[in-house]
Amino acid sequence: MKVAELSARSAVSIPTIKYYVREGLLPAGKQTATNQASYDDDHVRRLRLIRALIDVGDLQISEARAALAAVDDESASLHDAFGAVMHGLDTPAANAPPDDVAAAETEVGQWLEARGWAVTPDAPARRRLAEAVATMHRFGMPVAVTDFDGFADATERTAHLEVGYARSKADRTAAVETMLIGTVVLERARAEIRRLALEAVSAELGDER
Amino acid sequence: MKVAELSARSAVSIPTIKYYVREGLLPAGKQTATNQASYDDDHVRRLRLIRALIDVGDLQISEARAALAAVDDESASLHDAFGAVMHGLDTPAANAPPDDVAAAETEVGQWLEARGWAVTPDAPARRRLAEAVATMHRFGMPVAVTDFDGFADATERTAHLEVGYARSKADRTAAVETMLIGTVVLERARAEIRRLALEAVSAELGDER
Repeated sequence: MKVAELSARSAVSIPTIKYYVREGLLPAGKQTATNQASYDDDHVRRLRLIRALIDVGDLQISEARAALAAVDDESASLHDAFGAVMHGLDTPAANAPPDDVAAAETEVGQWLEARGWAVTPDAPARRRLAEAVATMHRFGMPVAVTDFDGFADATERTAHLEVGYARSKADRTAAVETMLIGTVVLERARAEIRRLALEAVSAELGDER
Repeated sequence: MKVAELSARSAVSIPTIKYYVREGLLPAGKQTATNQASYDDDHVRRLRLIRALIDVGDLQISEARAALAAVDDESASLHDAFGAVMHGLDTPAANAPPDDVAAAETEVGQWLEARGWAVTPDAPARRRLAEAVATMHRFGMPVAVTDFDGFADATERTAHLEVGYARSKADRTAAVETMLIGTVVLERARAEIRRLALEAVSAELGDER
C-alpha cells in the first residue's frame, strides 16, 4: 500500500510516519519509484505499537526506539529480549551518581539480592529506583527501599501472570510485543488509578486539616 | 545571590535555569541591574522541585508547569490544590476520543461511581485510564476496568497514608509540594520495581516456553 493508505489505516499522519522512519522506529517502505515506497500489514501493526508506547505509555522517542530494537533482535533468546525491553524503557544514566544516589543504589542492590530477584547489574531500573529513593530523602520523606516489600510481593505475584501470558503467545515477536505493551500500558493504567485514588481520598478528607 | 551561585547551589546549569524561567517553571530573579538578577532560597527550593519532577518523575515541561501552577495558586483550597496537582500531571486530551476509548471512559466513570471515589468529571486521568484499557483491548488483552479492583483497594489504603502525610506539613505550600513530589516520585519508584520484578520473573522462568 502507499503511504496515504498506511496513514488512513493507522490514523497516523504522513509527516509523523516519515518522522518515525527517520527516527528508526518504523522500517522504511519498499522503494517502488524514486519518490514512492510501498508498505504492508507489518507497518500497520508496528505503527499501532509505536502509538501505544508514545501516546499511552508516554515513552520518549529514544526509549521507544530502544524497546522496539529488543522486539526486532531475533538473535536474542526470549528471556534476553524481555530483559532488553525492560532496559530499553529507561534512558540509561549518563553520569556518575551523586553520593546519596550511589548509597541508595547499593541499598537497592542488597534489597534485590535479599529478595532473590535476579536482575542484571546494568539494569537501568536499579539507578532509577535509587534516584527516586534519594529524592524522597532530599525532601525529608522517611522512606527505605525495604518499605516497598509489601508492594514488591504483590508485584511479583502479578508479574508471574504477566510474563506467563506474554510467553503463551504463538510466536516470538508476539511474545516480546505483548511483554512490551503489557509493561508500558499496565504501568500507565496503575499510575492513573493511583492519581484518581489520591484525588478521591483528598476529596473525602475535605478541606479541614 | 547571583545566577552563578544559584547554579552552583542547585547543580543546575545557568542556561537550564534561564530556560526554566522562560518556560514559566521558575520565577524570574529580582532585577538588580540591566543584565543582572538576584535569586534567593525560594529559587533553590523550587529548582530542587523542578529537577525531581523532570529528572526523576519524567514529567514533560508542560506537565511540570501545570503541576507547579497548582502549588503557586494560593487562592485555591488545599483540596482544590491537590486536585489541580493531579490534573496538571496529565496533558489533557485534545480531541474527541475514538469510539472504543469513549466506551472505556464510560466504563471508568461507572467504576469510579461504584467505588465511591469522588473524582471531578474533568480529571484527565479518566481519559488516560480509558486509553490504557482500550489499548489493551486493541492488542487482544482481555482486561476490564473492574479487574483493577484489588489494585485499587490497596492503592486507596496507601493513598490515605500519603494524603495524610502531605496534610500534616506545617504550611500550605509544603503540603502541596509534598503531595506533588510524593505522587510523582512514588509512582516512578513503583514503576521501576515492577520492571525489576518482570525481569526477575522472566529470569526465573528461563528460556523454555
